[in-house]
Amino acid sequence: MARWEPNARERLVRAALDLFTEQGYDATTVTGIADRAGLTKTTFFRHFPDKREVLFAGQDTHARLLADAITEAPGPATPLQAVGAALDAITATFTDDRREFSARVRSVTAGHSELQERAALKRAGLARAMSDALHHRGVTEPTASLAAELGVRAFYDAFDRWADPAGQADPADHRTLTELARHTLDELHAAAAALR
Amino acid sequence: MARWEPNARERLVRAALDLFTEQGYDATTVTGIADRAGLTKTTFFRHFPDKREVLFAGQDTHARLLADAITEAPGPATPLQAVGAALDAITATFTDDRREFSARVRSVTAGHSELQERAALKRAGLARAMSDALHHRGVTEPTASLAAELGVRAFYDAFDRWADPAGQADPADHRTLTELARHTLDELHAAAAALR
Repeated sequence: MARWEPNARERLVRAALDLFTEQGYDATTVTGIADRAGLTKTTFFRHFPDKREVLFAGQDTHARLLADAITEAPGPATPLQAVGAALDAITATFTDDRREFSARVRSVTAGHSELQERAALKRAGLARAMSDALHHRGVTEPTASLAAELGVRAFYDAFDRWADPAGQADPADHRTLTELARHTLDELHAAAAALR
Repeated sequence: MARWEPNARERLVRAALDLFTEQGYDATTVTGIADRAGLTKTTFFRHFPDKREVLFAGQDTHARLLADAITEAPGPATPLQAVGAALDAITATFTDDRREFSARVRSVTAGHSELQERAALKRAGLARAMSDALHHRGVTEPTASLAAELGVRAFYDAFDRWADPAGQADPADHRTLTELARHTLDELHAAAAALR
């Protein structure tokens, strides 16, 4: 009998992250995740197809945020200006209180090839969301996918700096993820323009 | 009792490709591949850890070809000139008699998400081989990885055009994979320099 479970999705994600950290990804089962969250296996499968997907539940939302921001950028915006607006939109959802959680997701992902492969798929999916949205603005290839590639790279490079526990130790760097991503996009643009 | 099997590796690759095409990737087993090749399962496992790896056996060789060409490029070569030399080295191994085989690998890979994920890993591995070799030449980030990214992209875009059965129908296009890759690298470089 299906009943409404408050925050079931969020509880499953936290439970999975705890178990992946404590006992490893391979040793963690769907039943174990559901138990830890105080939910049933049936509830788990209403939210995720398998344990690998739990940490990547945000992909569709993130892809939509990026694509919508590019679509809604002002008409005269250049491809990189539209990508910059997309970075503003996605990074605004990573508030400072999510930093510790993000750091743990990053560290668990780095420790298992199955999760790394899934993370690479997500990255490719986000790049495609941006290049598709740029195509709809009339940007042609290869410009659209190059701009999208610089965009995802700026996001991930900035995310790594933001979520890195060592990076947090620098008391001088209070930049938000949005500021870091914009700065990284500028750096990548300059390096791409200077490529010989 | 291990005995020497002539061309075992090549025979296993051809057998796997045939079975993936005929009956699908999921329905194909390691035993089935070994049987088709006239070899034992033990011989299979001397060459590959599992069926997913069979079509990606060339990754280490390809990575080494790319890295060595970058390492051996003349001292004054720019990052993109070194990457161009790497493309010359890898594409030289794709002779025209391998085109039909390559087209079949490409088509089987496109049809199954597990193979697509593996192909994405290979692509990332080739990019890393190039950026690592560029680092050893003293090229800094993000220039090294941007040059490497343009390089793999030029290789894969050119490969898609070269291996595409529809593309082969164009009687005017007799360009080798090497020529296509060099041309694509030039196009990508121009687009990257013009990015705004």
